[in-house]
Amino acid sequence: VEDKQEFSRFPTKAGRRSLSRSISQSSTDSYSSAASYTDSSDDETSPRDKTQVNSKGSTDFCVKNIKQAEFGRREIEIAEQDMSALISLRKRAQSEKPLAGAKIVGCTHITAQTAVLIETLVALGAQCRWTACNIYSTQNEVAAALSEIGVAVFAWKGESEDDFWWCIDRCVNTEGWQPNMILDDGGDLTHWMYKKYPNVFKKIRGIVEESVTGVHRLYQLSKAGKLCVPAMNVNDSVTKQKFDNLYCCRESILDGLKRTTDVMFGGKQVVVCGYGEVGKGCCAALKALGAIVYVTEIDPICALQACMDGFRVVKLNEVIRHVDVIITCTGNKNVVTRDQLDRMKNGSIVCNMGHSNTEIDVASLRTPELTWERVRSQVDHVIWPDGKRVILLAEGRLLNLSCSTVPTFVLSITATTQALALIELYNAPEGRYKQDVYLLPKKMDEYVASLHLATFDAHLTELTDEQAKYLGLNKNGPFKPNYYRYTFTYNIDFIHHQFMYGFCAD
Amino acid sequence: VEDKQEFSRFPTKAGRRSLSRSISQSSTDSYSSAASYTDSSDDETSPRDKTQVNSKGSTDFCVKNIKQAEFGRREIEIAEQDMSALISLRKRAQSEKPLAGAKIVGCTHITAQTAVLIETLVALGAQCRWTACNIYSTQNEVAAALSEIGVAVFAWKGESEDDFWWCIDRCVNTEGWQPNMILDDGGDLTHWMYKKYPNVFKKIRGIVEESVTGVHRLYQLSKAGKLCVPAMNVNDSVTKQKFDNLYCCRESILDGLKRTTDVMFGGKQVVVCGYGEVGKGCCAALKALGAIVYVTEIDPICALQACMDGFRVVKLNEVIRHVDVIITCTGNKNVVTRDQLDRMKNGSIVCNMGHSNTEIDVASLRTPELTWERVRSQVDHVIWPDGKRVILLAEGRLLNLSCSTVPTFVLSITATTQALALIELYNAPEGRYKQDVYLLPKKMDEYVASLHLATFDAHLTELTDEQAKYLGLNKNGPFKPNYYRYTFTYNIDFIHHQFMYGFCAD
Amino acid sequence: VEDKQEFSRFPTKAGRRSLSRSISQSSTDSYSSAASYTDSSDDETSPRDKTQVNSKGSTDFCVKNIKQAEFGRREIEIAEQDMSALISLRKRAQSEKPLAGAKIVGCTHITAQTAVLIETLVALGAQCRWTACNIYSTQNEVAAALSEIGVAVFAWKGESEDDFWWCIDRCVNTEGWQPNMILDDGGDLTHWMYKKYPNVFKKIRGIVEESVTGVHRLYQLSKAGKLCVPAMNVNDSVTKQKFDNLYCCRESILDGLKRTTDVMFGGKQVVVCGYGEVGKGCCAALKALGAIVYVTEIDPICALQACMDGFRVVKLNEVIRHVDVIITCTGNKNVVTRDQLDRMKNGSIVCNMGHSNTEIDVASLRTPELTWERVRSQVDHVIWPDGKRVILLAEGRLLNLSCSTVPTFVLSITATTQALALIELYNAPEGRYKQDVYLLPKKMDEYVASLHLATFDAHLTELTDEQAKYLGLNKNGPFKPNYYRYTFTYNIDFIHHQFMYGFCAD
Amino acid sequence: VEDKQEFSRFPTKAGRRSLSRSISQSSTDSYSSAASYTDSSDDETSPRDKTQVNSKGSTDFCVKNIKQAEFGRREIEIAEQDMSALISLRKRAQSEKPLAGAKIVGCTHITAQTAVLIETLVALGAQCRWTACNIYSTQNEVAAALSEIGVAVFAWKGESEDDFWWCIDRCVNTEGWQPNMILDDGGDLTHWMYKKYPNVFKKIRGIVEESVTGVHRLYQLSKAGKLCVPAMNVNDSVTKQKFDNLYCCRESILDGLKRTTDVMFGGKQVVVCGYGEVGKGCCAALKALGAIVYVTEIDPICALQACMDGFRVVKLNEVIRHVDVIITCTGNKNVVTRDQLDRMKNGSIVCNMGHSNTEIDVASLRTPELTWERVRSQVDHVIWPDGKRVILLAEGRLLNLSCSTVPTFVLSITATTQALALIELYNAPEGRYKQDVYLLPKKMDEYVASLHLATFDAHLTELTDEQAKYLGLNKNGPFKPNYYRYTFTYNIDFIHHQFMYGFCAD
Repeated sequence: VEDKQEFSRFPTKAGRRSLSRSISQSSTDSYSSAASYTDSSDDETSPRDKTQVNSKGSTDFCVKNIKQAEFGRREIEIAEQDMSALISLRKRAQSEKPLAGAKIVGCTHITAQTAVLIETLVALGAQCRWTACNIYSTQNEVAAALSEIGVAVFAWKGESEDDFWWCIDRCVNTEGWQPNMILDDGGDLTHWMYKKYPNVFKKIRGIVEESVTGVHRLYQLSKAGKLCVPAMNVNDSVTKQKFDNLYCCRESILDGLKRTTDVMFGGKQVVVCGYGEVGKGCCAALKALGAIVYVTEIDPICALQACMDGFRVVKLNEVIRHVDVIITCTGNKNVVTRDQLDRMKNGSIVCNMGHSNTEIDVASLRTPELTWERVRSQVDHVIWPDGKRVILLAEGRLLNLSCSTVPTFVLSITATTQALALIELYNAPEGRYKQDVYLLPKKMDEYVASLHLATFDAHLTELTDEQAKYLGLNKNGPFKPNYYRYTFTYNIDFIHHQFMYGFCAD
Repeated sequence: VEDKQEFSRFPTKAGRRSLSRSISQSSTDSYSSAASYTDSSDDETSPRDKTQVNSKGSTDFCVKNIKQAEFGRREIEIAEQDMSALISLRKRAQSEKPLAGAKIVGCTHITAQTAVLIETLVALGAQCRWTACNIYSTQNEVAAALSEIGVAVFAWKGESEDDFWWCIDRCVNTEGWQPNMILDDGGDLTHWMYKKYPNVFKKIRGIVEESVTGVHRLYQLSKAGKLCVPAMNVNDSVTKQKFDNLYCCRESILDGLKRTTDVMFGGKQVVVCGYGEVGKGCCAALKALGAIVYVTEIDPICALQACMDGFRVVKLNEVIRHVDVIITCTGNKNVVTRDQLDRMKNGSIVCNMGHSNTEIDVASLRTPELTWERVRSQVDHVIWPDGKRVILLAEGRLLNLSCSTVPTFVLSITATTQALALIELYNAPEGRYKQDVYLLPKKMDEYVASLHLATFDAHLTELTDEQAKYLGLNKNGPFKPNYYRYTFTYNIDFIHHQFMYGFCAD
Repeated sequence: VEDKQEFSRFPTKAGRRSLSRSISQSSTDSYSSAASYTDSSDDETSPRDKTQVNSKGSTDFCVKNIKQAEFGRREIEIAEQDMSALISLRKRAQSEKPLAGAKIVGCTHITAQTAVLIETLVALGAQCRWTACNIYSTQNEVAAALSEIGVAVFAWKGESEDDFWWCIDRCVNTEGWQPNMILDDGGDLTHWMYKKYPNVFKKIRGIVEESVTGVHRLYQLSKAGKLCVPAMNVNDSVTKQKFDNLYCCRESILDGLKRTTDVMFGGKQVVVCGYGEVGKGCCAALKALGAIVYVTEIDPICALQACMDGFRVVKLNEVIRHVDVIITCTGNKNVVTRDQLDRMKNGSIVCNMGHSNTEIDVASLRTPELTWERVRSQVDHVIWPDGKRVILLAEGRLLNLSCSTVPTFVLSITATTQALALIELYNAPEGRYKQDVYLLPKKMDEYVASLHLATFDAHLTELTDEQAKYLGLNKNGPFKPNYYRYTFTYNIDFIHHQFMYGFCAD
Repeated sequence: VEDKQEFSRFPTKAGRRSLSRSISQSSTDSYSSAASYTDSSDDETSPRDKTQVNSKGSTDFCVKNIKQAEFGRREIEIAEQDMSALISLRKRAQSEKPLAGAKIVGCTHITAQTAVLIETLVALGAQCRWTACNIYSTQNEVAAALSEIGVAVFAWKGESEDDFWWCIDRCVNTEGWQPNMILDDGGDLTHWMYKKYPNVFKKIRGIVEESVTGVHRLYQLSKAGKLCVPAMNVNDSVTKQKFDNLYCCRESILDGLKRTTDVMFGGKQVVVCGYGEVGKGCCAALKALGAIVYVTEIDPICALQACMDGFRVVKLNEVIRHVDVIITCTGNKNVVTRDQLDRMKNGSIVCNMGHSNTEIDVASLRTPELTWERVRSQVDHVIWPDGKRVILLAEGRLLNLSCSTVPTFVLSITATTQALALIELYNAPEGRYKQDVYLLPKKMDEYVASLHLATFDAHLTELTDEQAKYLGLNKNGPFKPNYYRYTFTYNIDFIHHQFMYGFCAD
């Protein structure tokens, strides 16, 4: 599989954390009867050239094979088991139908987990049409199962670029149905509607956007004064950020390294570049399993935290010759250079957990004197003329995306947040939201968290009236102000602070 | 020692974290020859009634005994060893004298660590007059040592309330010297000047305030439109918050429990009420030493974090009958009630790490049927009629303040932050700061952190030009925007968010 | 693949920890080009029916396909990178040839790691003939590579039982070559020689046995007075035990659970049955990643350790209804019964890390009212009539054997121990070893450890003469007495101690 | 206080772990009203010169002041709360009186915890006479309380050497009472009886010895064929060893460092010399609190464990220049030499957690060019000519003994073990124990552990009949064979193993 293509052709869709299980499942094919079912499909006809009818007689969908619906249904049922928060939201709001009248077009990864979201939206009263935000990530059986129950899905695994836009268009542009809500992941659907159907776009009541890239595009539109619809940035919710970064990476760094290299963690010397939430998660996990971890940082506050957490803060060059593993988590580029790779020891491993494929200068390794040997899927031995081997994982792309899976529980948090954001925007009284990009209200963030507590059999304490008064809080929250955030991935008003006094500056 | 007085008479000075070593040292007297030197002093004459002259012939000070100066000098030298960041700032800026012309009045705990701060301010060009913000916390020898080198100090251990205000007045109201900067901890000095010397107050170039209480007062003044001077809130700097709360409490919970009760942590069942930074620190330390830790929370986001960190989230009543230790870290009141104390088991321990003495309903234990037995300093056995004993520490006041010490390193961070804030306000160009309360600029926060990295032999990585451009950052920082904060202790614009949709509210 | 057969037909070969990488690799096929090479082999002819010649003209071997030798050579070279201790032993002893004259027959898993061992024995002067101890575990390419350099290998993946014994016989019974040393794993080779070739057997200088089962058989023989050859039990060396149990399981529990279920560890409630070394490893890893772990124990000393390490010690029935995962590590049978499985909650996971497939009463789940659904390789959903699903891993067999890999580093420790034991027995002066079963001398255990320190760049401190004298130790060790052991897996003289005093007995 | 004397005059009593709370309490005087009560006693008359009568009219005791009995009673009651295992043993066996007829002479530290033991022995039917094994460690009030209820105690704090032997003699040599059991800690009582009263000694039914030193003496006696009485070594019980070393040191290293230096652990670089149980405990605690820990080792097996646990194994000289703290845990001598102390950095801390005061070469620091400054009790600054200060704790004696306390729970394990050993020896049928030194039977070790589980609300699982049969175990234990031990502190038959093959030896 030439998965490099995915990243070069649709750069806006690369590097997203909101990754469906199906992508990473490419790396666990042998376990998944679902995946192998898909893979063994030898039907080469393009779905666009087929006529398919679901059992209710509808033809308003386009998927690989509607007959896979039953299999997909089982996958959805399995996913439901780990998404009890969404199911609980579904049950609580089912009688009120807060989305009655909502006509939602969606463009996301199409996986069993997404299906649970879509079916929740339907249960709450919405009509949905859906397409895929990624040409490789669609679980065909799930797409079939959704189509079977009447959701108009236009997506299959292995679309061409032309297919990709055709599917989006078929979602939006249909007789006698006009969308009034958008759920997007990457901004392609939003962009298409904004450009092709400006009149429909204007009447949208709200956009919910999931990805860094999509949020970035929305802020640019807003800045340019062209955003005529309120949008909600669900990427920066506290709950989602903590789970996508700290907690998820704490597990996926171990999983990714183990599945690809079978390395023993105990006693290994590891350098983690960057001590943000991702780096903190990686460091905590590796330290806990007996690795000796070094940290590199540019930010003195993060560096001081690393010190207090028991990690030596070094420059990469100080440890490059003796570390066994390098992990990049910076969001920066060329954090590991060819010069440094030249100095790594035989058998050392290099991989990337940051947010793009730029952190390791992989291009610099594609020179004639180095030999590349693919030893497993996602694992290359790069061999120096003297026989030294450096083990490069996922060609420097995201290890967690390429070589481990995202637990359904994490996807449940994302999906629940999306559902609540749609409900909020759709039901908000006139004037609450202007034509701007909003962060998820704190209280909704707290609500998403509270829906997930049941999974852990966790019991919240309630404030007494007296206590609520003492603290100046509403008993039902929010418990923290709206501007309380752990991290921001996008800073719209980033102004370089000029510090007056010279001696601080050097 | 009737230290309850301290808390009842000067409520505004209670519960501060920015605690000097000397307070807590009351609990370690037997270790410290310094303290015993002070204690053995049997001179009962009030300093106000004595005439003392330092070796340079000055009489502009009022301390317990100027002859203790040499002893105090040694204490200052010992403190300097752990405050290398401040010493390094002193050295770097000594030639530039950024505080030349500054006339600073200070009102803080007077300890060896404060002395290092004051002498740094002097080295940078300032003239200083100083008084104590707490009637018990002054290290007399240190006050003497400062007076000996010409700093006008008015403070001694065991002042009366009248002494307290007399000392403040003597600092401010002196012939031929008019302050232009204020460094305050608690707001008493600021309040005194604002009320008594409004004309002098108006000409102040800036106030640096350290405490929650003082910041609160400043915000109230600002809100009322009466703050005619720019003020800087150094309490909420990221570095200070993390150290005062997470990292410091991680150590002081163990220290405080051990010094008072000699309890073995391994296998103990502990419930920590509140999973903010303080609670996180307590939980991490106790879990690491083999305790089984439960958490109570009102905020679902914090509760979810507790789950992911491996703690069961319960209501206090679920575990009250079988836990060995209760620790409150909520900032709330009556978190542990008499009803709950009635149900605790024999030999269990109750203590408070939160920000006031309200968390445990201690008053409810002062009833005739219960016997109080003081078994050690800061340790009471409260005995029920059936013989059950509950061990109450520090009468419900802050355990970390009462029964453990604050490492000099943490005080160094506070002192460095104060010094930089003074430099910034004193040197800021006209118009940069209005008559308002400001948070420490992000870059200064980072600078404080960077000065402390040397202690850990930590080496920061510097961005290349290419990387800085890629990230859109200045190579020297700030690396995070000004509005990035971990926690806020004071929310001036706390507006209750009304969430539109009913089903979230219950 | 019906791998159940392996366990039922050759029960003596089940449950061994000394597992080759190739077995577990069945679960990572998609990563390994090596494995797929093997798998894609569509040659159905039995190796016994083929005539193959290596490049030196020899036909004294029987493998799947001698042409795969080059591919196997690369696998061996990769393994050598993580077995530097063995390579270093090879280099150190190469000139002395301590095995000159040794004629070793071996019966072990045949993998790249074993090949490094065999080639080390050859380098030290031995002649070797080799066969497989398991009908499924042979890496065909590696067998080819060994045959190519002249080692007489008789083994292939997928032997029949008849093939298995034929291969053993061909190793032992050959013209003009009589073995004088045995390296066995499971005791089948030893048994065959003892029964079929008693006269050859008597002349053997020593047996090195690796497995619990084989050691058990040797002790039985010894007890019955029929063991006419000294044997060394390398299974119970301290180094091997710690690595096979504590350190290896600490990693493989995470790996095994993640690869099979993608479960998120954070916040999960897990019960670990048994707190021996395996249980300790599992508990430590899961706690470190945020799981809430309960322990069951029968032994009060282990239970007290669990308490001090921060785990609640419970009876399984107390937590069965609310745990998310059950892991058995007891070595006992029916630790999890049908009755308990009936009470587990929907979606919970059951797996076994102990030493046999008896711990979970899997047989009790094969009743008509329960539906089994195989959702992935090694993963079954067992579905109750009410729809409840319990996720059973590896059908109750060893999770670490079935669903994760053993790091090469751990195999290196085993292989080095085997090599040293062979050297010791072959070179021991007359009379040092009688016709009995011996534990590895302490000093050799320490030597194995020291050879592996280089991997971690660890530097041992040497005793000064004065210190050695003070401690009464030889400067080169051994540093602990021979009878110092962490655990014994087999207790030949286990005598039930009669405790005199009644009140202890109930 | 010249506590060095204690160690030089009675070397056999130094370095014992079985330390009473009262010794260490010297370091926490300010907390303990009990201790201050004792200290404030200004009665200088020797107890030997006083005539005292208890309330029952007896004069058969010699303590500081019988009037302190009530105060001592309260201390005993407080201790009982944490010694529930002993109380539970007392209750279970009270009706059977297994010690009826036993006449026990005891020589141990006399503290509240010992009193709970003695009163248990009395409750089980024994008559007791008691003296102190250490001239400084007696809690006078407790001695008074015991004397008040009729135990003949001869001991006070601050005995002379002559007093010490006089007290022992008064215990043993009394009209109409002949001891038949000995409970000793250090061997002084045993030695005195063996030498002075050989005929009485011969009739003793058993000796229970607690200390390393005493056990050593017994083995020597046994070796010389002069031990005419069975003796039980309770020092090497598994439970006691684990608690005295691993679990207790894990807590006391933090406590000892904090109480003496107020050091912040986070980010500190620490080197721990020795990775036995004590070193493992220290390393685990410091790592958990954010220190960066290095390990030195001579034994490759321990070194490999340190690697797997995530510690870099180094030679002391590699890190001596940059570490903040050195902790010795080796049992060896001159582990830190003057040469190394010369190279330590300013402000670094040196202390000892091993088993004697030889580990740090303190004597080498007593040279004219170095200045010693006592800054607190147990804390010296050693100052080099260039002003560098090294902080030496407890003058190189045991930090845990000198500067922290031993939790009552740990003392409970020791006391319960002693009580059971006495019961066993007293009740053993003729012939079970010969004139030799025995280790505690495994089953009793397990029984001690089981009595302590209640403290943790831990619930043991019981084997079913079927399981017991499968494992070949008695359902009530022992669960491990007698020869299973974690560590041996004394190796009577330590024979240097001669390893045959040269290349291992260098």
